[in-house]
Amino acid sequence: MAKVFDATEVAKHNTRESCWVVLYGKVYDVTDFLGSHPGGAKIILKLAGQDATEEYDPIHPPGILEEELKSEACLGTIDPSTLPQEAAPEPQEELEGPPPMENVLNLDEMEEIATKQVSKKAWAYYHSASDDMFSKSFNNAVYRSILLRPRVFVDCTKCDLDTTVLGHKLNTPIYVSPAAMARLGHPSGEAGIAEACRNFGAMQIISNNASMTPEQIVQDASPDQVFGWQLYVQIDRKKSEAMLARINKLKAIKFIVLTLDAPIPGKREADERTGMTGRTAAVPSGVKAAERSADDTPNPTEGSGGVGQQLFAGTDPSLTWTKTLAWLATQTDLPIILKGLQTHEDAYLASLHAPQVRGIILSNHGGRAMDTAPPAVHTLLEIRKYCPEVFDKIEVHVDGGIRRGTDAVKALCLGATSVGLGRAALWGLAAGGVEGVSRTLQILNDEMKTCMRLLGVERVDQLGLQHINTRAAEQQIYDGPASLEPLRREFRSRL
Amino acid sequence: MAKVFDATEVAKHNTRESCWVVLYGKVYDVTDFLGSHPGGAKIILKLAGQDATEEYDPIHPPGILEEELKSEACLGTIDPSTLPQEAAPEPQEELEGPPPMENVLNLDEMEEIATKQVSKKAWAYYHSASDDMFSKSFNNAVYRSILLRPRVFVDCTKCDLDTTVLGHKLNTPIYVSPAAMARLGHPSGEAGIAEACRNFGAMQIISNNASMTPEQIVQDASPDQVFGWQLYVQIDRKKSEAMLARINKLKAIKFIVLTLDAPIPGKREADERTGMTGRTAAVPSGVKAAERSADDTPNPTEGSGGVGQQLFAGTDPSLTWTKTLAWLATQTDLPIILKGLQTHEDAYLASLHAPQVRGIILSNHGGRAMDTAPPAVHTLLEIRKYCPEVFDKIEVHVDGGIRRGTDAVKALCLGATSVGLGRAALWGLAAGGVEGVSRTLQILNDEMKTCMRLLGVERVDQLGLQHINTRAAEQQIYDGPASLEPLRREFRSRL
Amino acid sequence: MAKVFDATEVAKHNTRESCWVVLYGKVYDVTDFLGSHPGGAKIILKLAGQDATEEYDPIHPPGILEEELKSEACLGTIDPSTLPQEAAPEPQEELEGPPPMENVLNLDEMEEIATKQVSKKAWAYYHSASDDMFSKSFNNAVYRSILLRPRVFVDCTKCDLDTTVLGHKLNTPIYVSPAAMARLGHPSGEAGIAEACRNFGAMQIISNNASMTPEQIVQDASPDQVFGWQLYVQIDRKKSEAMLARINKLKAIKFIVLTLDAPIPGKREADERTGMTGRTAAVPSGVKAAERSADDTPNPTEGSGGVGQQLFAGTDPSLTWTKTLAWLATQTDLPIILKGLQTHEDAYLASLHAPQVRGIILSNHGGRAMDTAPPAVHTLLEIRKYCPEVFDKIEVHVDGGIRRGTDAVKALCLGATSVGLGRAALWGLAAGGVEGVSRTLQILNDEMKTCMRLLGVERVDQLGLQHINTRAAEQQIYDGPASLEPLRREFRSRL
Amino acid sequence: MAKVFDATEVAKHNTRESCWVVLYGKVYDVTDFLGSHPGGAKIILKLAGQDATEEYDPIHPPGILEEELKSEACLGTIDPSTLPQEAAPEPQEELEGPPPMENVLNLDEMEEIATKQVSKKAWAYYHSASDDMFSKSFNNAVYRSILLRPRVFVDCTKCDLDTTVLGHKLNTPIYVSPAAMARLGHPSGEAGIAEACRNFGAMQIISNNASMTPEQIVQDASPDQVFGWQLYVQIDRKKSEAMLARINKLKAIKFIVLTLDAPIPGKREADERTGMTGRTAAVPSGVKAAERSADDTPNPTEGSGGVGQQLFAGTDPSLTWTKTLAWLATQTDLPIILKGLQTHEDAYLASLHAPQVRGIILSNHGGRAMDTAPPAVHTLLEIRKYCPEVFDKIEVHVDGGIRRGTDAVKALCLGATSVGLGRAALWGLAAGGVEGVSRTLQILNDEMKTCMRLLGVERVDQLGLQHINTRAAEQQIYDGPASLEPLRREFRSRL
Repeated sequence: MAKVFDATEVAKHNTRESCWVVLYGKVYDVTDFLGSHPGGAKIILKLAGQDATEEYDPIHPPGILEEELKSEACLGTIDPSTLPQEAAPEPQEELEGPPPMENVLNLDEMEEIATKQVSKKAWAYYHSASDDMFSKSFNNAVYRSILLRPRVFVDCTKCDLDTTVLGHKLNTPIYVSPAAMARLGHPSGEAGIAEACRNFGAMQIISNNASMTPEQIVQDASPDQVFGWQLYVQIDRKKSEAMLARINKLKAIKFIVLTLDAPIPGKREADERTGMTGRTAAVPSGVKAAERSADDTPNPTEGSGGVGQQLFAGTDPSLTWTKTLAWLATQTDLPIILKGLQTHEDAYLASLHAPQVRGIILSNHGGRAMDTAPPAVHTLLEIRKYCPEVFDKIEVHVDGGIRRGTDAVKALCLGATSVGLGRAALWGLAAGGVEGVSRTLQILNDEMKTCMRLLGVERVDQLGLQHINTRAAEQQIYDGPASLEPLRREFRSRL
Repeated sequence: MAKVFDATEVAKHNTRESCWVVLYGKVYDVTDFLGSHPGGAKIILKLAGQDATEEYDPIHPPGILEEELKSEACLGTIDPSTLPQEAAPEPQEELEGPPPMENVLNLDEMEEIATKQVSKKAWAYYHSASDDMFSKSFNNAVYRSILLRPRVFVDCTKCDLDTTVLGHKLNTPIYVSPAAMARLGHPSGEAGIAEACRNFGAMQIISNNASMTPEQIVQDASPDQVFGWQLYVQIDRKKSEAMLARINKLKAIKFIVLTLDAPIPGKREADERTGMTGRTAAVPSGVKAAERSADDTPNPTEGSGGVGQQLFAGTDPSLTWTKTLAWLATQTDLPIILKGLQTHEDAYLASLHAPQVRGIILSNHGGRAMDTAPPAVHTLLEIRKYCPEVFDKIEVHVDGGIRRGTDAVKALCLGATSVGLGRAALWGLAAGGVEGVSRTLQILNDEMKTCMRLLGVERVDQLGLQHINTRAAEQQIYDGPASLEPLRREFRSRL
Repeated sequence: MAKVFDATEVAKHNTRESCWVVLYGKVYDVTDFLGSHPGGAKIILKLAGQDATEEYDPIHPPGILEEELKSEACLGTIDPSTLPQEAAPEPQEELEGPPPMENVLNLDEMEEIATKQVSKKAWAYYHSASDDMFSKSFNNAVYRSILLRPRVFVDCTKCDLDTTVLGHKLNTPIYVSPAAMARLGHPSGEAGIAEACRNFGAMQIISNNASMTPEQIVQDASPDQVFGWQLYVQIDRKKSEAMLARINKLKAIKFIVLTLDAPIPGKREADERTGMTGRTAAVPSGVKAAERSADDTPNPTEGSGGVGQQLFAGTDPSLTWTKTLAWLATQTDLPIILKGLQTHEDAYLASLHAPQVRGIILSNHGGRAMDTAPPAVHTLLEIRKYCPEVFDKIEVHVDGGIRRGTDAVKALCLGATSVGLGRAALWGLAAGGVEGVSRTLQILNDEMKTCMRLLGVERVDQLGLQHINTRAAEQQIYDGPASLEPLRREFRSRL
Repeated sequence: MAKVFDATEVAKHNTRESCWVVLYGKVYDVTDFLGSHPGGAKIILKLAGQDATEEYDPIHPPGILEEELKSEACLGTIDPSTLPQEAAPEPQEELEGPPPMENVLNLDEMEEIATKQVSKKAWAYYHSASDDMFSKSFNNAVYRSILLRPRVFVDCTKCDLDTTVLGHKLNTPIYVSPAAMARLGHPSGEAGIAEACRNFGAMQIISNNASMTPEQIVQDASPDQVFGWQLYVQIDRKKSEAMLARINKLKAIKFIVLTLDAPIPGKREADERTGMTGRTAAVPSGVKAAERSADDTPNPTEGSGGVGQQLFAGTDPSLTWTKTLAWLATQTDLPIILKGLQTHEDAYLASLHAPQVRGIILSNHGGRAMDTAPPAVHTLLEIRKYCPEVFDKIEVHVDGGIRRGTDAVKALCLGATSVGLGRAALWGLAAGGVEGVSRTLQILNDEMKTCMRLLGVERVDQLGLQHINTRAAEQQIYDGPASLEPLRREFRSRL
């Protein structure tokens, strides 16, 4: 029979030399594990000697505890009556619940509702963007600066949103971006998002940092459901190779999304603040916020700060076109989509790497990586201006800033194949679980169809530049020095 | 003698199988009528078993009840003492009345006053626009971005606003647009607007969804008063044909306005919210806001939601240049004006259909159809740039965003023949009935004359591009791909 | 001995048939004068039967009462104890006074202080502008959009602001515009402004609607002080001719400013509101705000409304280049400056009329005539672009929107000879009388000198286009149809 | 033994004829010194007869009292019990202290914290800028209008900020500008800033108006630490020559920065207000704010007003390219950097003066000299457009508006060699002393590195125009008349 511990006994083990935590009523000795925690040792040491369940649960896939720790690490159970009382019920439990999802009329309302439902930590992680959040708001503002050109006297009885991505049929060009940590917002997590996507024939890209395992997420997928899997290549390549091996076995996953726009974490201050103001009783003296940022390279074993920075621990910042794509070719036959391109030069380079690279996602990481980075609309316009042939060679997807169906339609008019939702899907999940994500997709689908009909368009593939007035945005895009010829020559020389 | 019913008896008949309503003190069995209600069955079912007079009255032409229902549908009268008390007096009755209309100085003040006078439902219907109401506010902002160019040392003693539309003499280029549901705002309704227009020699276009019959509206017209009648073609063509037959007989109506910018309803959230928060006791379970929007095509028997969406039930979204104009030629000899054009391409196409088509109205439906659709000023500038010959072949009218006489003068300088007021006329009516509409027209006429005199202009036909600086607006208009030659060729090939 | 009247007796004479008013303790029968009051009969009828001193005093030149009324019109004196008590002390008397003028740092502060000192009526008259006051605020905003280009390593020990206007030496290019009704703001009135101008060697243009006679204003002028006199030509030409005869005799007045930008009044709503909410007990029934605006032409005997509209009563809207300048040549040998030009076309036309016309003032009447009229900066840029020869033929002055010395310097860089202050002088006067106007001039002079020195410039005539970056403003100016050749030809044909 | 004075006795000596002040517990007779006080007599007279320690201490280098006053000026000591009580403890002492510096996340937070820590006088001096502070805010806004262009798939493991200025190695391109009066903000003063710079390998330019002597500031410098010294040339050249002689002896000082953008003080109203509202009991009657500004030239013996204006007393406004540089060549062999250039013309002229002039600092004095002067970014773009050869001949540094590491990187991309912090360093010092300045440098270094890595750049010298989109800013820069040929010819003719 397992030993029963008193909380005061556990509390003594709050150092790097002897580090215990309580998880789901059990007491674990994680001293040996500190060095290999993907999120770094610091974040564990912050909670050393305490019940860490509340912090642990929403950001770790169920079952991973047993997978990662040796069985002898579990020392016994905690006597719950000895735990501090105030830690038990979260104040948010007392909130009145969200309204019926069918009464939510738009994505802004959904975010408002979600904001009231989620913990401060989750809000900070979802809401935050880098520096002054200029790019985050510009991502949307640039869509509002594009005017639509409705055509009249066109039969608009029929309208559907069917499209294909890499040959896979979808019922909507809206997909869910690889946003991490869904269980921070709602216990149904990424699997809940998958359930909503199934009902709408929508694609989902699973985050490398999902709070559930890929297997758990795709478990209830329909046979024709389409998933991508996002890869952050780890410094420890073996970990990435092991993950890819698992992914290769999941038939629901149709492609790999290699994320490139965040080789190092951006500065998300709202998120970092939650890292500072959390429970700090057990923080070893000298572990301060400033230490992190003084480091030149993220230390894989010593991450701390907000959720966002923890997730970056272990990510390899040394990826390159030649080296990394070659390595990836040895690990998977799945098609590759590169995510996070923000210049026409990189879009052009990607197109040179077809057919291994089958698509790109223009993204500034929801404004979370570099502030004042360009929105996807700028990059679309740059490609149109400097190297439109890219659209013929690879698929071009976009994300960032979508709040209305009209925003999505404008992206499609500019040549995007599909349009991703990051925060919006998480806000939907946080507001109403599966129903919230479904309502989010429903709202956007409805708005897109209304928009297409009023444009006089029946199918997604009919949308084009003649349907939008992008003059304001065009006057803002890059027109500095850029020559694609050297890029082409250098690429050729490597063949 | 008619049977007298108790309200509790009526309340039992609140289902699709047996649906009774109380109207003007009488009890009707409308079960058989549910399927043919132009506004859909749902809206009736919401009020089934109840006194629906308050909801019914302001949006239905007087007398239409007797016209539409068989006499046996009237089962008897209600015992008024048995009705719930709180339904009787509206809280707005307690408001202090509006100030004297002659003290209202501008259209913004008029809207403020009206806002205090009308029910929330009327406010929501009048005020709402699609999505984020960007186009609604841009409609006006674009006028403010145009500067006037006053000329001096010109005799400006005389100034009049006389003009003609399709050869009919008018005393002002301001007209009232076909805005629906005037009785929501004031009991004098569309006939009250007609009375005000008569006094100012102003044209009025009667909405297809007026809350009075065309006959009632034109009843007191002066011999030289000019009306147009707006047509929303119904899926059930017989209904439209019957209406056109009635219109053909009314000598006051000089032309047909075929509205094209709203083949399906835009998303007017303020209006939709009133549909949600209304009385819902009798709503059959399972009838939710979300259902509507999930439909691909508006279901003619099942409309619901806000006033705006109800009005669209039955409207045909399949109209086309060839088919619809040909059909219309068989139904009426009245000149046709096409309303809702938002691109120079469509304006050009319309001009090819002269002389059946005698004019167009550039309009984005007051920002109520598609958000981020262009304002009429953009379309005027596009036509000037790409196909100025349109102005020679057909009349070009505009509406949307007029708040000042200077706005109207700017539209005339750009080539508009006349300038429509939608909401402004309704706000005037809601604020002060006939006097309110008169004051609205008076304010705009005065402002226009002041403006024209300061420009050094005596007559409307002297206004031109030399009187305005449109440089800011010109830098925003569409300059993407557009070729009119294919449009011309295709049109020719159909002859 | 004069008869003493009881206020109740006077109160009976409150009709058009018998109209008495109390002024400065005397009772006048003004029934016969109603028809010839330059401000119209209505405004008198509003005060009929009452003590009108408070309304009368600040807007009429002292002594004009005796000049205009026959001696028998004075019936006797009022028994002051019988007058209503509440009319006696104005609430503003209780205010704490303004701070020492030397502590006021800028013109915005001066306006704030003045706003607290003056009556609502004066504030409304001074502050108001037409419609939405767009032009009023744009007048200043356009200066802020122009950047300065400081040059360094230039000896800036010396700097003076000396300049000349029509050959007359001045110590500053800042002058006081012909703003009316100075005594509304402070009892020292226009003569107080003259005193301040004398101390600064600044030019002053006396308003046609000054609240003091020209003789009173120039009475204490220094020998080299420079005045202009503003002419609003009256429908009754004899009145204007009599005034010009008086002006011709005043040696201090060096030129005539013929104002052209307000042949009819603009719509100044703040000002009109005070006309409405004033004392109305004695207003004959049926005299309503709306009546005015329904008129096509200002009725010289029936003006009413705000101060601004009263002042326009009697002004002739029929002036023209040929007719009016010819008439003026018969009335005066003084040089003519035309005020209120807002287009390069009119500036060009004016230059054709040299040497009778010696200068122009680019002005949109402080935004008080036509809203969305262009600011003087636009007109300066237009002239530079389309007909720079104007600068060689006549002087070009500007007013409107000056809040800082840098604003004035920018106007000079663009080619202006001098820069007028309208409201700013009145705010200075209202805030601190002569000292307030002096402080206003001091502030601007100081700011201008600081600006010029930092530009590396010693004298006003060294300022040029190389000192400013006007790129933003240039992108906004008119570039529509305009040809000066027809203007030139037409002018020649008249010779 | 020193005589002990009673405060009432001291208080009698409060005139120009007999002027005593208490400093650090001693009583001084400064009557004879009034005429030679660099800050002018007025400021002393304001405090005559009083204990001036609080005002004196933070703006005078320690020890200068003994240096400037003859020993007999010290009359004795004050009996502290006779001094007014309320003068003793400052209310700010009661404030809660700043948070730990490592928790400060960005420069805006730092300023907020500093604002709460410092006296109103210090805040006003640091925060103020000229007129409406347009240039101050535009300095930053223009950086936000520049978008970054992140490149992906580039190994960004390594990144350092090493650079050189005039051949001296630095660890960061961020330097501290010659901002005056550091001890107003924190007692560690300019030496505290030097300590922080030493730890970061950052350059510091010592203000001519530092509140410590140069010797004190560089005392603890490391052997490879780099300082510049800012020269404001005094009207009394001997003073400047004496200072230069001292500077020539300090090996830590590597170059002279000759400031040109403020030959006379700008109008810093917030700062001037503190001059007005200070203790005024002892102000001689007639010494008013207005007097100052009425002067044509700053009177070296009569300065007053805010801190900023006091500092300008004695500064020579007559410097010129030829005369001043020739004089300077006779006084020092140190390289010269010219500060405050704001036009490409002056940048070009400076480049002609190489090699005596080795660099320039593009600066509008933090918006403190002339409002609406252009930001450094405009001048960088102007140089790029009109005379890019300047970058080859001299170093180009910038300051003004830096709030984020991305701002600094953008300046480097445009060709700047290094980027100065003015207020930001003072806010850091005021918020947390040495630690505050260190944290400020740390934040910017971290943000710059994050930015460079996300751009795919390892070293500062790799940054270029291809990394930024400056289209919005380019549309705003000067394109008026400018020819460099006459400048070149005139320069040649002087050789």
